[in-house]
Amino acid sequence: MTYREKSSNFFKELQINICNELEAADGKAHFITDKWSKPQVEAPEGISPIDSTSRIFTEGGGITRVIADGDVFEKGGVNFSEVHGKMQPELVERLIGKRESASFYATGISLVIHPLSPFIPTVHANYRYIEVGAERWFGGGSDLTPYYCFHEDAVHFHNSLKKTCDIHDKNYYPHFKKQCDEYFFIPHRKETRGVGGIFFDYLGQTKPLKQCPITDHASLEKFFDLVQSLGNSFTESYLPIVEKRKMMRWTEKEKDFQLYRRGRYAEFNLVYDRGTYFGLKTDGRIESILMSLPPFAKWIYNYIPDPGSKEEKNLQLLSEFHEWV
Amino acid sequence: MTYREKSSNFFKELQINICNELEAADGKAHFITDKWSKPQVEAPEGISPIDSTSRIFTEGGGITRVIADGDVFEKGGVNFSEVHGKMQPELVERLIGKRESASFYATGISLVIHPLSPFIPTVHANYRYIEVGAERWFGGGSDLTPYYCFHEDAVHFHNSLKKTCDIHDKNYYPHFKKQCDEYFFIPHRKETRGVGGIFFDYLGQTKPLKQCPITDHASLEKFFDLVQSLGNSFTESYLPIVEKRKMMRWTEKEKDFQLYRRGRYAEFNLVYDRGTYFGLKTDGRIESILMSLPPFAKWIYNYIPDPGSKEEKNLQLLSEFHEWV
Repeated sequence: MTYREKSSNFFKELQINICNELEAADGKAHFITDKWSKPQVEAPEGISPIDSTSRIFTEGGGITRVIADGDVFEKGGVNFSEVHGKMQPELVERLIGKRESASFYATGISLVIHPLSPFIPTVHANYRYIEVGAERWFGGGSDLTPYYCFHEDAVHFHNSLKKTCDIHDKNYYPHFKKQCDEYFFIPHRKETRGVGGIFFDYLGQTKPLKQCPITDHASLEKFFDLVQSLGNSFTESYLPIVEKRKMMRWTEKEKDFQLYRRGRYAEFNLVYDRGTYFGLKTDGRIESILMSLPPFAKWIYNYIPDPGSKEEKNLQLLSEFHEWV
Repeated sequence: MTYREKSSNFFKELQINICNELEAADGKAHFITDKWSKPQVEAPEGISPIDSTSRIFTEGGGITRVIADGDVFEKGGVNFSEVHGKMQPELVERLIGKRESASFYATGISLVIHPLSPFIPTVHANYRYIEVGAERWFGGGSDLTPYYCFHEDAVHFHNSLKKTCDIHDKNYYPHFKKQCDEYFFIPHRKETRGVGGIFFDYLGQTKPLKQCPITDHASLEKFFDLVQSLGNSFTESYLPIVEKRKMMRWTEKEKDFQLYRRGRYAEFNLVYDRGTYFGLKTDGRIESILMSLPPFAKWIYNYIPDPGSKEEKNLQLLSEFHEWV
């Protein structure tokens, strides 16, 4: 089997397993399933005023699964997709450093879960296999965004990721953790998106870019192994936190703080997220791309938490990077 | 007086007048006032993953005025600002087509008003005077975003803008109206942000770019006259709509539809808006820049309105451009 087949098969199966476990944790809501496919079309001009030259031809399809109004999960989506087409030079250059048009292929799983309770963190994970021209690589990661952060929950999440990474290479976790901190930072707010996790890209590319000093780049197989381990252990990293917090009651003020903080999630995803950017640039299926946005969000002008409050402590926590394990 | 002085004085006075009239229309809430100033600092690296090379030095200040939790206005902001500094070549090239670093100056008024009622449209207006290197120009515009659109309200808004433009030049309104339609379009949704209004930029620049085929570019004075007329007639274009709709009651479903549509407003502002982009790129005062975001917004996966419903008709309306006068 090719890596295209192996990876897309794995991601499809992983989607089913993760959805089943999330449904069981919710106990009420069920995922709906939207299969979609996309004929080969030229993306319209002017996708972004920033750079309207990256038009590409894309075709492909995916399975979008969405859960909403659950007892535990207010909104969540788990996407599988597989697209291919022709990419214009500007985007190729950004990805592999060569200014030339190239064919591309991308398959992956991407999920964002927004719980109802302000005590359960939002979680994101994405694992993908990509080919651009002659280059091919795996990328992905998973990160946690608490509203009210319980130290032990952040530790559990990081410990779980570290344990899985360590099976493959002890150098992975510290390196991926650092990349995650750097990536999930909101420069205009000068704060982190949450307590981080891991993030990596270009694993297996023949000519590693500066983003990835990990060795042995010719070996796609070991990175596929890593991605499988991480995908398969996603629910172990997250669901124990859900179980621990789901019976806790919250006040209106606490819910309000969650909505306010979800505004930051929307800001990050719309302004900085590479997946969103790639999706918009490649004229992807918009409902699947923006399924990551929160069900409700709130923007308050110049919110300043009460001195000494839980809210202040949580905002303080997010203004810095931390070592959790 | 220089254009810097004349414009900033005008914008400051306009801010006071507009806030007074909005307060009177609300009848309950009052604007709070935040004066801010910004020392000369270098913007941090990595402001955006898209382009981290546009760091500039900025100093200056502004007056941010915000209204919240009113009887009529759920959240609104009217900003005055005046900033100057050194701009890096990439941004200079984008603005005036020359790849060189240059000093810049910008002053303007910018407002976004989000009413509580889904029957009162959100309104945006922005008028500005800008200098980059040896170039100087006026820009601005105003546009209306109804949730449930009343035809006569859109007509009133456009008529008011046309009347003011026509005093100066009969060619302005049709040209600016078209530019507004093009600018306030959300490519990834393939829909307009609302019913448009007017939009213009680079008026008075010595070497007009393709964005502005308006004649007589050497005459800054006439464009300053235009900007003053438009600024002074802002409340005439908007408040009669507010007065007409403010006593109408709404249902929970109608409020919900407004929240859903406000998600689009957040998407446009965070992904495409040039003012937001410029603000983030110049490391501007973030609370003033993002004050345009809605108080509450909602994202529903793949929302499809009931066939034949008001919601369906309104979404249909926004999928096309219209001539209102």
